Amino acid sequence: MLLISCPDQRGIVNAVTGFLLQHHGNILYLDQHVDLEQNVFFMRIEWEVAGFSLKREEIPGAFRALAEQFSMNWRLHFSDVVQRIAVFVSKQSHCLFDVLGRFESGEWPVQIPLVISNHPDLGPLVRNFGIRFEYLPVSAETKAVQERRAVELLREQQVDLVVLARYMQILSPVLIDALPHRIINIHHSFLPAFVGAKPYHAAYARGVKIIGATGHYATADLDQGPIIAQDIIRVSHKDSVEELVRKGQDLEKIVLARAVWLHLQHKLLVHGNKTVIFD
Amino acid sequence: MLLISCPDQRGIVNAVTGFLLQHHGNILYLDQHVDLEQNVFFMRIEWEVAGFSLKREEIPGAFRALAEQFSMNWRLHFSDVVQRIAVFVSKQSHCLFDVLGRFESGEWPVQIPLVISNHPDLGPLVRNFGIRFEYLPVSAETKAVQERRAVELLREQQVDLVVLARYMQILSPVLIDALPHRIINIHHSFLPAFVGAKPYHAAYARGVKIIGATGHYATADLDQGPIIAQDIIRVSHKDSVEELVRKGQDLEKIVLARAVWLHLQHKLLVHGNKTVIFD
Amino acid sequence: MLLISCPDQRGIVNAVTGFLLQHHGNILYLDQHVDLEQNVFFMRIEWEVAGFSLKREEIPGAFRALAEQFSMNWRLHFSDVVQRIAVFVSKQSHCLFDVLGRFESGEWPVQIPLVISNHPDLGPLVRNFGIRFEYLPVSAETKAVQERRAVELLREQQVDLVVLARYMQILSPVLIDALPHRIINIHHSFLPAFVGAKPYHAAYARGVKIIGATGHYATADLDQGPIIAQDIIRVSHKDSVEELVRKGQDLEKIVLARAVWLHLQHKLLVHGNKTVIFD
Amino acid sequence: MLLISCPDQRGIVNAVTGFLLQHHGNILYLDQHVDLEQNVFFMRIEWEVAGFSLKREEIPGAFRALAEQFSMNWRLHFSDVVQRIAVFVSKQSHCLFDVLGRFESGEWPVQIPLVISNHPDLGPLVRNFGIRFEYLPVSAETKAVQERRAVELLREQQVDLVVLARYMQILSPVLIDALPHRIINIHHSFLPAFVGAKPYHAAYARGVKIIGATGHYATADLDQGPIIAQDIIRVSHKDSVEELVRKGQDLEKIVLARAVWLHLQHKLLVHGNKTVIFD
Repeated sequence: MLLISCPDQRGIVNAVTGFLLQHHGNILYLDQHVDLEQNVFFMRIEWEVAGFSLKREEIPGAFRALAEQFSMNWRLHFSDVVQRIAVFVSKQSHCLFDVLGRFESGEWPVQIPLVISNHPDLGPLVRNFGIRFEYLPVSAETKAVQERRAVELLREQQVDLVVLARYMQILSPVLIDALPHRIINIHHSFLPAFVGAKPYHAAYARGVKIIGATGHYATADLDQGPIIAQDIIRVSHKDSVEELVRKGQDLEKIVLARAVWLHLQHKLLVHGNKTVIFD
Repeated sequence: MLLISCPDQRGIVNAVTGFLLQHHGNILYLDQHVDLEQNVFFMRIEWEVAGFSLKREEIPGAFRALAEQFSMNWRLHFSDVVQRIAVFVSKQSHCLFDVLGRFESGEWPVQIPLVISNHPDLGPLVRNFGIRFEYLPVSAETKAVQERRAVELLREQQVDLVVLARYMQILSPVLIDALPHRIINIHHSFLPAFVGAKPYHAAYARGVKIIGATGHYATADLDQGPIIAQDIIRVSHKDSVEELVRKGQDLEKIVLARAVWLHLQHKLLVHGNKTVIFD
Repeated sequence: MLLISCPDQRGIVNAVTGFLLQHHGNILYLDQHVDLEQNVFFMRIEWEVAGFSLKREEIPGAFRALAEQFSMNWRLHFSDVVQRIAVFVSKQSHCLFDVLGRFESGEWPVQIPLVISNHPDLGPLVRNFGIRFEYLPVSAETKAVQERRAVELLREQQVDLVVLARYMQILSPVLIDALPHRIINIHHSFLPAFVGAKPYHAAYARGVKIIGATGHYATADLDQGPIIAQDIIRVSHKDSVEELVRKGQDLEKIVLARAVWLHLQHKLLVHGNKTVIFD
Repeated sequence: MLLISCPDQRGIVNAVTGFLLQHHGNILYLDQHVDLEQNVFFMRIEWEVAGFSLKREEIPGAFRALAEQFSMNWRLHFSDVVQRIAVFVSKQSHCLFDVLGRFESGEWPVQIPLVISNHPDLGPLVRNFGIRFEYLPVSAETKAVQERRAVELLREQQVDLVVLARYMQILSPVLIDALPHRIINIHHSFLPAFVGAKPYHAAYARGVKIIGATGHYATADLDQGPIIAQDIIRVSHKDSVEELVRKGQDLEKIVLARAVWLHLQHKLLVHGNKTVIFD
């Protein structure tokens, strides 16, 4: 499939569909969006590989001229490529467990070669699934060293996507810049409400009637990255902070999984600090 | 804008966008869907009239050849045409009032030349808004006559869309067939649960924890028409039937309005007994 | 019914139910909540007036001793008392229209003797319903004078509750203090996200996937008052600011109505900056 | 805590709180509901064991007289008793995995001594958690024998609650009657819509815009038992049956967990075919 963004002008859809037609491509899905305010065109187009007259490796060369004509940012993905995920965790297991369940059952056709944690607690659980667990404790002094070590491990394992499954450390640019728009975090509030630490305590103090969770790409600014998915659950005056945490955990794992799944299917494009989601 | 459905084959998007390009049409929105099971292609394409080289009345003739080549069902709409709505009511006013509010505030750019009712109760309210109110009482004997009278009135007033705003009569084919897929009903349950009369009583008896409302096209089969919009609200053992009715009324008016708004924007296509919604 | 809050201790429920029993009161609803963190007890108890051995005016005197024993804050309400609402509006009509609909249909058993606005636009609509419309234009110079005028009008009309139906002025303490916890505002965001002006623009800029509305008591701090009701609706990258505004209007009117309805039924207690809701 | 239901009459709350007061019980939560239609009184009352002047085993004897006076159905539970859960599964692992995660993380303070399945597939996963897995294949001939075997195992393991985690067999009265209102099933539709097999296929065929899941007590009538929890998720014409199944799995596990958690906390009462939920 192709993911394209470029300045909007007449003829883009016609040109791209013409390219596919010329090589006998049968379109399965075509999603298109124009940001009328910024005059930017976005498209995701998926076609059948069977019957297509170009080999996989020939497509980029053949498409280049058209891409340059329209000044496209573009990416080519094949849906049968198995992506490799690394999960970062701290002590809480609910998001990790949910990710492992989707992997085990085959719901997500991925490989999980690596789990990294700043605490040793979840090591036995992870290793029980036959997955490598790296304990990288982080202090003010060791942070830079450990993040570089993490980047090495991610490269070594050819990781495509990092999932921060309630990893309670702020990532520095060392890690962020190593995987641009390939690190997904779950924040346990309805962003932009309750940025930063202890959002459930803040929600309790404010007396809100709904709490939320937000799946977003991690960027250098804490909790400010492009939002991919959000959802909410109702709460009441009866709910203590502990009850908010408990209700929130179910949200966190479901919203994180939705964000990861959209990424795995290549159904989103980032533009500025926002996402275009073709769902 | 064009709404198209046809058997799926290679080249449809390319052909339609080529047609627009040839006449200097700038695409604003393109939504496309392929029903892979039934092999049917659906598309809604909206372009700027400004700059388009064909006059409105010339478009059908120019498009015909292409439409025939792909065996298309197609409809052409212009977004600046003011549509004319007739509302059918009985005694309950909440949906009618909501529709009138959207009309009065200009939220819906429509005309409402006519309200028809089988009860006289809401006449003063309607006339207070300067809208014609026709009282057409219905009994087993008079039903056929009154429905023919209603069809006459709808034709006379050049009504594009009929909104059944909690009209408590089952329409016969006389009316249904006069406006195919142009009559929208609100059913006060989450279809297909609780078809027919008294769904709130049935929901209470079953002890459900959520109730719903469904906006759908009226067809000859009661509550079986293509579903356009649905939504739900939580209820509990504390809610009496009266409380379900009260909570449900808010749902009914919102869901009915969503269904009508999708229709007014020509953002839906009916295929078989289902809707394709380009939202 | 009685609404009670007091320091928690053993025996409160027993004492209050004993008082009712002694006077042959049949309890219909009893809702109780203990804030374990602050050790505060809250109760709402509703009983049948029929058969109760005390006359309405005798109840306060008879209850006083018990109330003092437990240091209670308490309020006595009778559900058959018709409450009087004043609505404040600016130019937008959707919330006002929704309130009027609930009044007209009898859904809310209230009187609406007065609508106040800083713009003349909605005068004809309001007067068409036989309701007094007061145009009180507000500038930096006239604000204090006009708010005192408003307070006078509210007193004159014996208004129990003020509903700010998208009134686009910040109230000063003159008004706020005149009706403590009897002014309900609708804020067009999911508080505490997007406090202040233009929340839909801010939501669009941040790229959120859900927008919300919040019904709360107005206090001296803008958008910081006790939250009564909140709800949300999903949005996507396709939604322009105008579309967020349109979707948000449906939320605003429904959430405002829920908050007002809870207040009218005396189903909420304010403690600190939070609400206890007995729903 | 005490769970009580009885014919409604004056003085029940006063009598029960008087009983607790007499023995120095400090009430933590009191939830009460009167079904005005059927004139039935329901109450859940939770108090601190610390300071209570009766020993656990003395409470039933001391309470009996009062219970008989009001013809109460009543149950006494202690929140520190660890309940024992058995899980029934077939081939799908998502609900089982979710239950195991809540057990492993300590979110649910329970023991899981036993998993029973009519397929061997999930055996290795279960045993990996150190839990006994019993493979009881079921055919028309062996059903009665295997269910009696299951009942034996449940008794042997002193199981308090059976969780049907997408167990694809209809239970016969042998099992149902052995654990009245102690078997919780998850049905993958919004009951009463789409009773029986293949609800996602039926939802797809009907073209609904929302799908749901229902957690309920299993009874002799398939999918007719008292509903404990329900939730929904939006779907569209784009969703194939496979996509409905995928979206539905997240719902199923969350709704099942909510129903089980309510049961584990003794926060529900069954009356007729409905539940009273004190949440």
